[in-house]
Amino acid sequence: MPAFEPQDPDFEARVRASFAKQKLMKTIGASVTKVSPGEVEIELPFRKDLTQQHDFLHGGIVATIVDTACGYAALSLMPVGSAVLTIEYKVNFVSPATGKRLIARGHVAKPGRIVTVCAGDVYAVSDGKEKLVATMLTTMMALRDRADVSG
Amino acid sequence: MPAFEPQDPDFEARVRASFAKQKLMKTIGASVTKVSPGEVEIELPFRKDLTQQHDFLHGGIVATIVDTACGYAALSLMPVGSAVLTIEYKVNFVSPATGKRLIARGHVAKPGRIVTVCAGDVYAVSDGKEKLVATMLTTMMALRDRADVSG
Amino acid sequence: MPAFEPQDPDFEARVRASFAKQKLMKTIGASVTKVSPGEVEIELPFRKDLTQQHDFLHGGIVATIVDTACGYAALSLMPVGSAVLTIEYKVNFVSPATGKRLIARGHVAKPGRIVTVCAGDVYAVSDGKEKLVATMLTTMMALRDRADVSG
Amino acid sequence: MPAFEPQDPDFEARVRASFAKQKLMKTIGASVTKVSPGEVEIELPFRKDLTQQHDFLHGGIVATIVDTACGYAALSLMPVGSAVLTIEYKVNFVSPATGKRLIARGHVAKPGRIVTVCAGDVYAVSDGKEKLVATMLTTMMALRDRADVSG
Repeated sequence: MPAFEPQDPDFEARVRASFAKQKLMKTIGASVTKVSPGEVEIELPFRKDLTQQHDFLHGGIVATIVDTACGYAALSLMPVGSAVLTIEYKVNFVSPATGKRLIARGHVAKPGRIVTVCAGDVYAVSDGKEKLVATMLTTMMALRDRADVSG
Repeated sequence: MPAFEPQDPDFEARVRASFAKQKLMKTIGASVTKVSPGEVEIELPFRKDLTQQHDFLHGGIVATIVDTACGYAALSLMPVGSAVLTIEYKVNFVSPATGKRLIARGHVAKPGRIVTVCAGDVYAVSDGKEKLVATMLTTMMALRDRADVSG
Repeated sequence: MPAFEPQDPDFEARVRASFAKQKLMKTIGASVTKVSPGEVEIELPFRKDLTQQHDFLHGGIVATIVDTACGYAALSLMPVGSAVLTIEYKVNFVSPATGKRLIARGHVAKPGRIVTVCAGDVYAVSDGKEKLVATMLTTMMALRDRADVSG
Repeated sequence: MPAFEPQDPDFEARVRASFAKQKLMKTIGASVTKVSPGEVEIELPFRKDLTQQHDFLHGGIVATIVDTACGYAALSLMPVGSAVLTIEYKVNFVSPATGKRLIARGHVAKPGRIVTVCAGDVYAVSDGKEKLVATMLTTMMALRDRADVSG
């Protein structure tokens, strides 16, 4: 993965401020644990009220945290005044989401002025070991200087 | 869309019982509003605690309900003793998820003994009008006669 | 599927002219059989030199013709001076591609100024019957008034 | 990427024999340049008869070679008597496919008895430099001991 040069030196504060506005992240108990240029990590402790019918963490929540990590990875490289929107994503679920907590890591695969392609993975952590749970490929879009949306 | 013949006459009860076991559905306030052979509908009233940074319903939740609708559409055609797992999905977000409530409709595009392909759409409903919010294409897998998972 | 109003009355001629510039379409023997606003159909006679290891038509070619049908479905709704690019697609292969010929039908699911979402299906035709072979969901992008690309 | 242990010591011969049966690969001029356990590389010299309307190599062909590389990466880890089928793939096109030749690299992200998830990238090579053209995430399926398909 190449190193990226952020256009906004305050990219981390911008990402964290936008994340703090996502009420869903608070609802599910997710937090940002790392912000680098083009790379963001989100953690989610396992919670029973987020499970599906087999008592695994619901795939939709697994996808939600890695989509969010990818979106902020894209935003971290965008200029001041940008907002990020997810155009689409594709996610494969490769193991049941169990364990104590999940870690989602999203990174920019190809930045662009309008369209940024990101990829990400989710790992289940138990006893200090990480196991791959899901992998995502996604397309993000930058909106510029819009009054209605930011971050 | 072709009409499908269910292998289990009690398909609707089986789908509803499995849905009732999904704690996430209760957490976000989603309910099953229709179960037909190969087609399932889920509703979700808009809630502020499920929003992203622009105050729209989070795309991850939009995807979650249509993934769930697609999974149960697949399960509705599977024989007794089957469990359904999402192998993967791809979702495009085409409009902001706003309005009073969302309706997710999933249907089977191609049933199979092991792999079933489904498609689904999510609509935002306001003043009785539906607006397309997201569209999904997904691959479901049937697990048979497993002690550890069912439904 | 809603009816769409083309912005360019000569949309069909524009689509056919661009298709004629695709040397790959000639190489594989594909032709445009229908152009409506937001919907395009492409046919491909079965050819042994396009097969994979099991003697079915290669999935990559199946995807190629429905990607092309989707791209031109998007272009048919774009204003004069636009070029269309495929940002990404996702395709499920649901039956072996056999038979006398394939028909790919692409349509616009959601048009947009920059981003257009399309969906499409490929059918194998034998003895006048159509069988679903593949289904696609794709994101197209409009480029405007660029000297380097058109159509 | 973890190192994988092949179940069949003759995995490379098996992959190359199956590739040789793909008539499409000969038609477009592609060749296998590397086979490791869980990783396959395919090269394709640029050819004008494979281009789209802007004179770039057609995205469908770009996807075809990386789908093929991913499929054989999956096959390289499968036991003797298996055949591989692509269930689905998703591909993002991030730069125009130009240059002297393309290199597609596919690898296994998560092997499985029935379902294997792979990822791959395509690079355009010019003057010895590689530029990312496309990135893919895909789901492969193993068929066992079938009379009708192998490899």
